Amino acid sequence: MPSRRLEENVKALTFDVFGTVVDWRGSIIREVVAFGAKHGIDTDPAGFADAWRAGYRPAMQRVRTEALPWLKIDALHRLILDDLLVKYDMRGLAEDDIDHLNRVWHRLDPWPDAVSGLTRLKTRYIITTLSNGKFSLLIKISNRARLRWDCSLSAELFHHDKPDPETYLGTADLLGIAPSELMLVACHPDDLRAARAAGCRTAYVERLLELGPGHPPPRVEEGEFDVVASDFVQLADRLGA
Amino acid sequence: MPSRRLEENVKALTFDVFGTVVDWRGSIIREVVAFGAKHGIDTDPAGFADAWRAGYRPAMQRVRTEALPWLKIDALHRLILDDLLVKYDMRGLAEDDIDHLNRVWHRLDPWPDAVSGLTRLKTRYIITTLSNGKFSLLIKISNRARLRWDCSLSAELFHHDKPDPETYLGTADLLGIAPSELMLVACHPDDLRAARAAGCRTAYVERLLELGPGHPPPRVEEGEFDVVASDFVQLADRLGA
Repeated sequence: MPSRRLEENVKALTFDVFGTVVDWRGSIIREVVAFGAKHGIDTDPAGFADAWRAGYRPAMQRVRTEALPWLKIDALHRLILDDLLVKYDMRGLAEDDIDHLNRVWHRLDPWPDAVSGLTRLKTRYIITTLSNGKFSLLIKISNRARLRWDCSLSAELFHHDKPDPETYLGTADLLGIAPSELMLVACHPDDLRAARAAGCRTAYVERLLELGPGHPPPRVEEGEFDVVASDFVQLADRLGA
Repeated sequence: MPSRRLEENVKALTFDVFGTVVDWRGSIIREVVAFGAKHGIDTDPAGFADAWRAGYRPAMQRVRTEALPWLKIDALHRLILDDLLVKYDMRGLAEDDIDHLNRVWHRLDPWPDAVSGLTRLKTRYIITTLSNGKFSLLIKISNRARLRWDCSLSAELFHHDKPDPETYLGTADLLGIAPSELMLVACHPDDLRAARAAGCRTAYVERLLELGPGHPPPRVEEGEFDVVASDFVQLADRLGA
């Protein structure tokens, strides 16, 4: 249990988004299943979702190193999708249908506890995002999913990706608070460890199904983080909100 | 009347805040009146409000040129307030009371039409702030006043103040849209003219009482801006929201 002192010292919570707030994998699987049914295509929805996500960093890298013209996030997702459609032998689709599927990234659903937990946490703390995802995508996801952040922040604003300390320190600085008054909420221990090393507080939320069943849970040491919670509702309980 | 085409092309509205969304002057006057009554001090609330606001830029300048240590926004407002307390002969006050008065900048009230207009506009457009005010202050004001932006943006993020084009272009870029898909909403014609010159759309909202009664309204040419509205509710009407 966190001490009362922790609750009093923390002024703002900043949330990792993909995996921690939204169930990106489940959302994509659901849409790929529906897409396959509609178009009479036999798909591997889970493999498709994982491959799409895994393609993000290499595609970003390709844009950088091949000096491709700067791509908007939708175009970047489309670059990966076009390869996947070939790989999964999904051919002869209409452009409108492909475009709709591509925008599934705007339609990621929050975990079932996210909105109710955030609503409670917002009564006591400033709540923000801190994601390596593109700012414009965060806005679209949050708008659709009715995630009422006090503000959205993306690593993009700091010209560094997590886990670089500039991202956590930059967040605290923008919010006008000390790093020790900022708590990162995430389901990825590495992200949390970097935030802790930067002087921030940490809350580990277990999203054991982020990568689907059969994946071992991340290894976390006892007492490694200030708070451990199974979801955002329990996090609100633990943080007195 | 804007054309239907304008409504369809504009994807996001970005709002000037001080004057356009919040009635900074009226809010401060109300608090200074209450403060004076509580402490038995005869004040000049309107003069006090105007002097406090007018002191902001010189104080910022002083911090920069005298290489004062970087000041948080509350400390900057306090620097000005301490001078004003002497000037207005408001002496012998307790530190807690001065500190409370200083934080009136967190408690600025929106104009009466702001929340209802924004609620309607948000159903159709992404809505954000674009203020020269400090990011942390925008968050505090919006949180208290229940202004449900899709995101808060401050000129601070772009390392330029309005009316530099980097601020308008940077906003469009972060939102992943073209400048022509972004509309600035403001009560200050100069701000709007700069946004227009940067390729953005413009909505002039008349806040004729921003500076109190007796000030002539800003000079605006017929047809100079895409939309002219008396308040945010009329703006929602005009923009089909």
